[in-house]
Amino acid sequence: MNAEIIAVGSELLTPHRQDTNSLYLTEKLNDLGVEVRFKCIVGDDLEALTAAAKLAMRRSDIILFSGGLGPTEDDLTREAVADALGLKLQRDPQIIAQLEERFAKRGYKMTPNNARQADVIASAAALPNSLGSAPGQWIAGKYDGQDRILVLLPGPPYELKAMFETECLPRLRARIPEQHIATRILKMAMIPESQVDARVAPIYKTYTDVATTILAGGGEIQLHLRCRKDSQAEAEARVEELAEKIEDEMGDAIFSRKGETIEQIVSYLLQMRGMTLAAAESCTGGMLAERITSLSGSSRYFLGGAVVYSNALKTQFANVPKSLIDQHGAVSREVAAAMAEGIRKRCLASYGVGITGVAGPTGGTEQKPVGLVYIALAGEEGTQIVERNFPGDRQRVRQFSTQQALEMVRRALL
Amino acid sequence: MNAEIIAVGSELLTPHRQDTNSLYLTEKLNDLGVEVRFKCIVGDDLEALTAAAKLAMRRSDIILFSGGLGPTEDDLTREAVADALGLKLQRDPQIIAQLEERFAKRGYKMTPNNARQADVIASAAALPNSLGSAPGQWIAGKYDGQDRILVLLPGPPYELKAMFETECLPRLRARIPEQHIATRILKMAMIPESQVDARVAPIYKTYTDVATTILAGGGEIQLHLRCRKDSQAEAEARVEELAEKIEDEMGDAIFSRKGETIEQIVSYLLQMRGMTLAAAESCTGGMLAERITSLSGSSRYFLGGAVVYSNALKTQFANVPKSLIDQHGAVSREVAAAMAEGIRKRCLASYGVGITGVAGPTGGTEQKPVGLVYIALAGEEGTQIVERNFPGDRQRVRQFSTQQALEMVRRALL
Repeated sequence: MNAEIIAVGSELLTPHRQDTNSLYLTEKLNDLGVEVRFKCIVGDDLEALTAAAKLAMRRSDIILFSGGLGPTEDDLTREAVADALGLKLQRDPQIIAQLEERFAKRGYKMTPNNARQADVIASAAALPNSLGSAPGQWIAGKYDGQDRILVLLPGPPYELKAMFETECLPRLRARIPEQHIATRILKMAMIPESQVDARVAPIYKTYTDVATTILAGGGEIQLHLRCRKDSQAEAEARVEELAEKIEDEMGDAIFSRKGETIEQIVSYLLQMRGMTLAAAESCTGGMLAERITSLSGSSRYFLGGAVVYSNALKTQFANVPKSLIDQHGAVSREVAAAMAEGIRKRCLASYGVGITGVAGPTGGTEQKPVGLVYIALAGEEGTQIVERNFPGDRQRVRQFSTQQALEMVRRALL
Repeated sequence: MNAEIIAVGSELLTPHRQDTNSLYLTEKLNDLGVEVRFKCIVGDDLEALTAAAKLAMRRSDIILFSGGLGPTEDDLTREAVADALGLKLQRDPQIIAQLEERFAKRGYKMTPNNARQADVIASAAALPNSLGSAPGQWIAGKYDGQDRILVLLPGPPYELKAMFETECLPRLRARIPEQHIATRILKMAMIPESQVDARVAPIYKTYTDVATTILAGGGEIQLHLRCRKDSQAEAEARVEELAEKIEDEMGDAIFSRKGETIEQIVSYLLQMRGMTLAAAESCTGGMLAERITSLSGSSRYFLGGAVVYSNALKTQFANVPKSLIDQHGAVSREVAAAMAEGIRKRCLASYGVGITGVAGPTGGTEQKPVGLVYIALAGEEGTQIVERNFPGDRQRVRQFSTQQALEMVRRALL
């Protein structure tokens, strides 16, 4: 079975807004063994929307609409799908009552335009919306002799997700032949994609029944494995076998096999070992601390740190001797090490990270070009320093630098 | 004139990748007075792609394809568009020569599959790719009696942007009647959308010839004004008049009228006054420093700061008396003020910011619930403290908190 997703809303055709619901819906459909073959974005335009619905009914088994279910004149998904099906809309008095109650609870009187949300396509089942006012709709039937499922979902992502989970997934599972799909996501940090591919392609290419995809970005490589079989055990066995072979090849370069982020892995390892971390950041300006503290509970292992942009603060907060900066420059192997050691001592942490570099686009010299970054990790066993020349713009240099630091912490904790 | 954007690539139909080229293309098309009426995402499937091209030629004046121009078997955009037009592909020996030269320069011999990139649709002009190997294609002609422009662009965003700027914009400008469009973007921080709309809607609704859109998110409200007239002067005069009336109403709540970010405005103001900033962050964990230092040259006014997650570090780096934390708790008005004052003193900065709160999702209590944040700003003239209860998840609470801090710095500098 295949699916098509139609995102409705003129705002999704501006430079300022983008459909993101389809990523969530695609993930859920793939889990059911359904592939998404088309995505369309259509404005609040009855004719265009009706044409899109008709086209989708010709070519796709399952059609999911998101958006255009609200109370305003611009909300036209109900009308368009009814037109495409040649069916009428019927106002449902029970939904009207629910809407009135919802407004009354909040101390408002329902304005008349809200009644449009109770217009249900003949033959459709209304899907309750636990988080908003607009109900969804579910239509299953034969069109031109083909089985078709059409689902109308609200646009706000939290409403859409809740409705899809509780109302659509059980209905879809009941209609889609049970699928036996096993997946694995293996993640690696700070290895070139070409190197990973050269090493793992000879392995995964022998598994023609496992679809393998490599995704790369932000200093991270992801290998997605996916296998469909007649039984779940068979599918699991196949991806597990391939995953193990890839792990044998890549060793501890693989930091995650269940989709965890590197921040999460560092968090697990620090907590498991009862250790703590502190950071002194220059060119990354707080990005490392921000990434680590994006996890709730990070106060258990991240003590804090210093953003030491100025040389004076490198001395004041991270104990870097002024003479060291004078001698080697703020962007140097020596200063990175001193920052890591200094912040570790000042915070009484198990590990200290020091990052100094030229994030650019300005500030580069011939000796110290944009992208040159020193990352140091100080621990009980000593200090290691890595010199890297990162490509890309300021944002990417900072992202790579923090990724490198997290990877160094992870490896130190193995 | 209206346009349709077709993003090509099976990876864009997975949960892991999203078309972003269309946002850039939409902005450029809108500037030319062209509206985007449809966006489609199609996989690497010749039949589906040919059908999408045919449909687009029926309903849209300008059709932009992104992706599917590379050397592999999956790259099918050339074939599909040729099929849709009923035209042949012709291998261009000049492009072959350029490709061979490109490979030779890098010390490689061109593999035969690369020659596919030299297949040009009869009647098309090849568009040179300054940043990659795959040339684009430009086709203008009549189909079913209608003027149509079809453009094939490479998928990688930097290649697409460079090619669109240098090759497509001049050609489009030559064919599209000159448009006179004036725009303004007014930005405000930390004001509820409903309050902005209640105050400015009565003003902008009287300007029926200016399209006004409100966008809200992350503690920022943007008002987009857009007017099309017979002359540029007339269009500029209309948006300027409306912008001034809105500014009269909203006063200095408006921080930007040329699209600058609040980080940029704070940067301008600090540099104009020769002042400096430092920050002590608890619940935002470095996000404020990260945002400020995302701008190149921020070392001129941002001295640095401390991420003081633990109470000990609040004392060590921001001089917060231990007794104050014991008495009021780490999340308190008093500690926020002490953090701001302490970090200002320690860094010898003109202004110091202190942020402490409960970012959640764990750690909330009845007295101090998730979302409670104190933001303090200390300067020569004293210290101001704001208490806020932010809604949303950890990421949003942190985003709002840093936005509030930037807005307080901005207002202090006015």
